[in-house]
Amino acid sequence: MEEVRQGADARSRLRTAAVESFAAKGFHGTTTRDIASAAGMSPAALYVHHRSKEDLLHEISRSGHERTLALVQEAVASSRDPREQLLAVVRAFVVHHAEGHTGARVVNYELAALSPAHLAEIAAIRRRIEAEMRGVVERGVAAGDFETADPRMTALALLSLGIDVARWYRDEGAWTPSRIADHYCELALRMLAADRSPGPR
Amino acid sequence: MEEVRQGADARSRLRTAAVESFAAKGFHGTTTRDIASAAGMSPAALYVHHRSKEDLLHEISRSGHERTLALVQEAVASSRDPREQLLAVVRAFVVHHAEGHTGARVVNYELAALSPAHLAEIAAIRRRIEAEMRGVVERGVAAGDFETADPRMTALALLSLGIDVARWYRDEGAWTPSRIADHYCELALRMLAADRSPGPR
Repeated sequence: MEEVRQGADARSRLRTAAVESFAAKGFHGTTTRDIASAAGMSPAALYVHHRSKEDLLHEISRSGHERTLALVQEAVASSRDPREQLLAVVRAFVVHHAEGHTGARVVNYELAALSPAHLAEIAAIRRRIEAEMRGVVERGVAAGDFETADPRMTALALLSLGIDVARWYRDEGAWTPSRIADHYCELALRMLAADRSPGPR
Repeated sequence: MEEVRQGADARSRLRTAAVESFAAKGFHGTTTRDIASAAGMSPAALYVHHRSKEDLLHEISRSGHERTLALVQEAVASSRDPREQLLAVVRAFVVHHAEGHTGARVVNYELAALSPAHLAEIAAIRRRIEAEMRGVVERGVAAGDFETADPRMTALALLSLGIDVARWYRDEGAWTPSRIADHYCELALRMLAADRSPGPR
């Protein structure tokens, strides 16, 4: 048991070190030696856990994308009302990208460094995330709660707003993740014309 | 004259090669040798024009930001009506980030690789771009054309939408820059509640 725990601990330290290094110097500017050293390990010890630097990026990218997909799915499942689903998804997505901005930048900006097979796997998760958001928009349109000329592009724009939070968000900034999420929820309702009192039908 | 032209041509080839290399492998993953070789030059010839790799990134970043600022200023100057200014700024900004997506990714994602002095210079240009967008929003609010609880965050969100286009836009995709700009103009009007027919005053 002790060995299992130490193994999990080493993997976790390597992952944290890799995220920090990739975020600071990019995937291609980081060596396995940099990562091992930041994790307080030898390069040989790193290879016990990961075959390559790309293998580490793949694990970070997969778990990051799976976590995002799970957050979005939970938010969608939290209500049957598209308007409530939209608010829950936007809130979860924005808070996730603000609080986890360092990891989110790695996950979103280093896709080109993945092997073709790994990229295909991650792209499939991204398509599922996009499909969840698009589903919310389309159900809202079908219910007459939302109005948009292009549900697919609007869904992409909603995700785009959240993803870009990871680029500009600073822990020391004046805006908390929750305050940003509040405002972005209001923007999302407006983007779908869902903020208006129902007019004559 | 011939020498001057050859010098300008060499600088231009180096810049193009540097943008492509930085976009593909990141600033830290690119060597001056990579850039010189992609430009069909020797590393020694590169140093005739640029003291360092960071010097090249700085030139790319400065000219990219100055061009963006100029585009935004021209769009604002194109009308005295905040609504028309908003549409002109969003259109110019979105088209610029779609058409120039490779350069825009370098300019927006490699800021941390700049020296502190160069970063301060670029940050000042970015603040001027943000101030232009915020000015449009604030003038529209003052004129009663726009409504928003937080002009500064809404202005940032509008820029964010455009910047993130450079991340997901693909030349071979189905959406032209102009079509994306059309839809984003509609979203921008909605984000500022400027898409509604004027109610009773």
